[in-house]
Amino acid sequence: MNPVRIGIVGVGRMGRRHAENLATRVPGAALVAACSPIGEELEWARDTLGVQSLHKDYAELLANKDIDCVFLVTPNTLHPAQIIAALKAGKHVFCEKPLSMVLEECLAVEAEAVKHAHLKVMIGFVRRFDASYQDAQKSIAAGAIGRPFLVRSETTDQNDPSGFFVKFAPTSGGIFVDMSVHDIDMARWLLGSPKAKRVFSLGTIAVHEGLRGCGDVDNGVAMCEFADGRMACFYASRTMAHGHETQTEIIGTDGRLIVGREGRINQVQISDAHGIRTLTTPTFYERFADAFLREEMHFVDCVRYDRSPALSLHDATEATRIGIALRTSLMERRVVEL
Amino acid sequence: MNPVRIGIVGVGRMGRRHAENLATRVPGAALVAACSPIGEELEWARDTLGVQSLHKDYAELLANKDIDCVFLVTPNTLHPAQIIAALKAGKHVFCEKPLSMVLEECLAVEAEAVKHAHLKVMIGFVRRFDASYQDAQKSIAAGAIGRPFLVRSETTDQNDPSGFFVKFAPTSGGIFVDMSVHDIDMARWLLGSPKAKRVFSLGTIAVHEGLRGCGDVDNGVAMCEFADGRMACFYASRTMAHGHETQTEIIGTDGRLIVGREGRINQVQISDAHGIRTLTTPTFYERFADAFLREEMHFVDCVRYDRSPALSLHDATEATRIGIALRTSLMERRVVEL
Amino acid sequence: MNPVRIGIVGVGRMGRRHAENLATRVPGAALVAACSPIGEELEWARDTLGVQSLHKDYAELLANKDIDCVFLVTPNTLHPAQIIAALKAGKHVFCEKPLSMVLEECLAVEAEAVKHAHLKVMIGFVRRFDASYQDAQKSIAAGAIGRPFLVRSETTDQNDPSGFFVKFAPTSGGIFVDMSVHDIDMARWLLGSPKAKRVFSLGTIAVHEGLRGCGDVDNGVAMCEFADGRMACFYASRTMAHGHETQTEIIGTDGRLIVGREGRINQVQISDAHGIRTLTTPTFYERFADAFLREEMHFVDCVRYDRSPALSLHDATEATRIGIALRTSLMERRVVEL
Amino acid sequence: MNPVRIGIVGVGRMGRRHAENLATRVPGAALVAACSPIGEELEWARDTLGVQSLHKDYAELLANKDIDCVFLVTPNTLHPAQIIAALKAGKHVFCEKPLSMVLEECLAVEAEAVKHAHLKVMIGFVRRFDASYQDAQKSIAAGAIGRPFLVRSETTDQNDPSGFFVKFAPTSGGIFVDMSVHDIDMARWLLGSPKAKRVFSLGTIAVHEGLRGCGDVDNGVAMCEFADGRMACFYASRTMAHGHETQTEIIGTDGRLIVGREGRINQVQISDAHGIRTLTTPTFYERFADAFLREEMHFVDCVRYDRSPALSLHDATEATRIGIALRTSLMERRVVEL
Repeated sequence: MNPVRIGIVGVGRMGRRHAENLATRVPGAALVAACSPIGEELEWARDTLGVQSLHKDYAELLANKDIDCVFLVTPNTLHPAQIIAALKAGKHVFCEKPLSMVLEECLAVEAEAVKHAHLKVMIGFVRRFDASYQDAQKSIAAGAIGRPFLVRSETTDQNDPSGFFVKFAPTSGGIFVDMSVHDIDMARWLLGSPKAKRVFSLGTIAVHEGLRGCGDVDNGVAMCEFADGRMACFYASRTMAHGHETQTEIIGTDGRLIVGREGRINQVQISDAHGIRTLTTPTFYERFADAFLREEMHFVDCVRYDRSPALSLHDATEATRIGIALRTSLMERRVVEL
Repeated sequence: MNPVRIGIVGVGRMGRRHAENLATRVPGAALVAACSPIGEELEWARDTLGVQSLHKDYAELLANKDIDCVFLVTPNTLHPAQIIAALKAGKHVFCEKPLSMVLEECLAVEAEAVKHAHLKVMIGFVRRFDASYQDAQKSIAAGAIGRPFLVRSETTDQNDPSGFFVKFAPTSGGIFVDMSVHDIDMARWLLGSPKAKRVFSLGTIAVHEGLRGCGDVDNGVAMCEFADGRMACFYASRTMAHGHETQTEIIGTDGRLIVGREGRINQVQISDAHGIRTLTTPTFYERFADAFLREEMHFVDCVRYDRSPALSLHDATEATRIGIALRTSLMERRVVEL
Repeated sequence: MNPVRIGIVGVGRMGRRHAENLATRVPGAALVAACSPIGEELEWARDTLGVQSLHKDYAELLANKDIDCVFLVTPNTLHPAQIIAALKAGKHVFCEKPLSMVLEECLAVEAEAVKHAHLKVMIGFVRRFDASYQDAQKSIAAGAIGRPFLVRSETTDQNDPSGFFVKFAPTSGGIFVDMSVHDIDMARWLLGSPKAKRVFSLGTIAVHEGLRGCGDVDNGVAMCEFADGRMACFYASRTMAHGHETQTEIIGTDGRLIVGREGRINQVQISDAHGIRTLTTPTFYERFADAFLREEMHFVDCVRYDRSPALSLHDATEATRIGIALRTSLMERRVVEL
Repeated sequence: MNPVRIGIVGVGRMGRRHAENLATRVPGAALVAACSPIGEELEWARDTLGVQSLHKDYAELLANKDIDCVFLVTPNTLHPAQIIAALKAGKHVFCEKPLSMVLEECLAVEAEAVKHAHLKVMIGFVRRFDASYQDAQKSIAAGAIGRPFLVRSETTDQNDPSGFFVKFAPTSGGIFVDMSVHDIDMARWLLGSPKAKRVFSLGTIAVHEGLRGCGDVDNGVAMCEFADGRMACFYASRTMAHGHETQTEIIGTDGRLIVGREGRINQVQISDAHGIRTLTTPTFYERFADAFLREEMHFVDCVRYDRSPALSLHDATEATRIGIALRTSLMERRVVEL
């Protein structure tokens, strides 16, 4: 069986991680092309991974007949148009989350994908490929906690005192679309895809005053009621002192599962003058490095064996829909009905 | 120094616990009277604790000149009138929470107390006397976590399959007034008594359908925004499979404290075919038994040494105000502005 | 029923703790006398606890007809003679551990006690009264872990950089008799009092060079084989950086219990620049404060109701016998057969 | 650079894991040959991994000029002769632990290796490649816990009620050589390779009576004193009810590190009728799957880039020497001086 020939689009920090995995660890994948407007990113791909086909222009990459599939690791605002262009060029598409920050664009991508039923499209909701989340999802589906009725999920980043992220805030979609979208997707997945009915959110700027200009916050809390009466609570923070944590609690009539509590970086516990302590992963990447690899392997296998990806474009649209509603609630200080 | 002569009012489950502590463990306290409409409760007080003065009628107890102080452990709906009557009779008053389920009653009690400045009145927000919560409060006040801006607090009871509590639901004030009022008080205390601005809540009946008649739920989540932009999230549940937990997380700009995570019943860890595990306190009482004693000692000392209690009637009013607003939000499915 | 009239002997740090409990918290106890060669200790007893009968001389205290019982909290080397004298004077005796550091003395005390069968004598192996150890013991007795065959137990003190304890080392009996005797007693209790067959120990001076003069160490490890093939391992340390821990692991054919892992001082968890952490009890006293009270209540009840104490003098002798053998093994670098 | 051409010898359970990694995940490795006396093992290698060169006879494999390196995953008793033969055939050798169960054989292998200085030889002490152990080792070397003076390390397997392992016991070298050798190596590594001076061990048969015939036990405890006065304690068990744990505690003058406490299988915590609990890895393999891969990558890189392996044959000899002494101590019930 021929390998899936892949072009990576965007070779920044996350793009390099995807590229390295695709080049060396994903069975059945061949990283044959890279696209970036930045020359040194292309040089890195060539020198480090031996990528032969280098493109400054995305259209040029899509015109390359020797590419089966693109991996989009580009700025969020480019995602919808790039996905649509790839589909029109007959390429399978993996795209980092979020699908978009505008609901109409999500729907437009879905509509385009329908026209290319033979092409695989998947948005990178990486937690669906984490071994612990998968274990929880299977346990719940098998009835381990009875009927699940509440998900409480949080994504909290270690504070970057430099506030580097502030400059990306205006195009990030806001804290709920940028960060909580993962938690929203987990809530939908773990509760069996209920339909959201109403949401409410609150937020505050705890540290990064620079966010005030674009209406964003560095700590936000939110609640969502689904049509069947089930509920979800979210918390997103960019200002934690101790590290990154991704934690999800699923409460059912017969028990509770918690995924990711305390997010230890490894199996070392320290006892010293500071007490008994453990260190936490500094960023989401250390927490989900394995899941990224599993995600890539899953998608490449979907292309190789003509299988449907584990999550659909519609899932991405729905998570985005809820994320946007939360941002509206935050901006307008009101309950938003969906 | 003469002991504080105390009459216990209500000698049910919680009343007996207060009575036993007052009779045997609280320095400076003398349990001299008991009041209950139920004969066997009085007999218990006489036979077990040697209480001499037994009253079926509350007015009769208040008329007793040999009593300095009453401890009210009576049904919630009686609290306001009983406190006011005790004050008028010149007695110090300790009353179990909540102060009332009606805001006007809270204010009426406050107004009456003002007329009796020499009498001590305190509502039993027991967590303020828990060693761990006190440690957290002092750490926060000392700046250990920078500026605290978010409290997330939950009170979750082990499910009682008999649903015994359902019959008390109509007079309980609802899940937020009955259970979350403790979390609300903790949020106010730990954040330095900010003023609530708006709240929103959601709830569901996960198990106990009998609650539907009175509009209550067995699981509720809520959010509160304070006037200074700080925030609180609450979760109350009556349906946990594994035990009672009271957990409060306080997040600040330089760190986070969590009080009560996992609520272990003791220091035994078990490793067997079920995994590595610990057992949790079955009810709030095992979790807070020490705090109840410390609370009683604190109040008796306030009476003995003419000190102000650690929490004021106004604190109780404010917690109740937020609890009632959360109930309104739940019933009317809307944001409630305060 | 008349209260048990108690004389406290030794009013230093631990003596004061016993005295305060006996004076204010132990039902049925009356602290009526105190004995100490140090004037200010007696003044403290009089001024703080209202003790009326003050004695500089132990014989004088024993001559006091109004005392039913003595609590000995005196230097270890005095224990055997003081117990025997008290028995001869017709007093019940509670004595802090250890019984003695010389086996012949243990046996002499046992022999004397036999002559006064109506008097209660108990050595303060406080862990037998700790709620968690009791829970473990009951679980094991009920078969929760099948047949228990190995106990691993450790007592580790926080380092005192001043090395204050070094000056007491020559009369302490050495680290195994002074510290591990508690672990030895736990092993015997939890395994159902098997007879020790052979022991071996090792030790090192990690920090306190001053111990070298008396042949003691500040860290020691030991193993004990019982006649029925069961085993115990011990670890004692005086040099921990983070706090005091008392931890006991009991391994059976169907499971394992661990008592006291991590020894948290309270229910507060901290997440900050040092990681996610908890603080540990600084000394054994915070860990066992409740157990001391329960121990005192137990012994006073034994006197009041003419019951046998939960542990016998023979238990104390056996723990001491093993502790002495471990010291011999350390000094002579050989296996000691018992 | 040409890949390292590897022949796998032994294609049983562990052999397949090594083979799969070498075939698909180790950069610079080419799995070109397999050797096994069992036909279906060779078929598996051919069919699953596409291995072309299949040998029933080890000598035949060694004669293959297209192989640079062998990976020995064979019965323990074959290791020494197979290593020596491979060296004589000019092959680099990776061999699963233990090096041997006979000290003279260890020394013979060392002597042979000296004659082939250009060939790499490494025994698979996999824990040296575990990220958590490496982190601990680096922290200790950097002074994080002051001077380390005590290691306590345990390897405890989940009980296999079928007692399958009993039939391998006679050729396993006994519990200390077979299991504790890993802990011994960790103690040496983490303490900076001190020389062992004396050891003592105890053991019991808790469950598997079939071991009695060969003098082995299913639970053993041991102590080791090093020439510089530092110490190590070991515990090995084959009868745990809840899963496999590998735990190592390193105690220093300024702190303590613990690696692997509780050995969780993933990041899911369960709260249900059994309490709050986590599941543990069922076998060592789940615990060390990543370390096996890192170990293989390390060794292949040593071959590719002509580097010295992270652990020497001498390290393996020393660990074996201590393990054998522990077995002697167990059999002869005495302290063994080294």
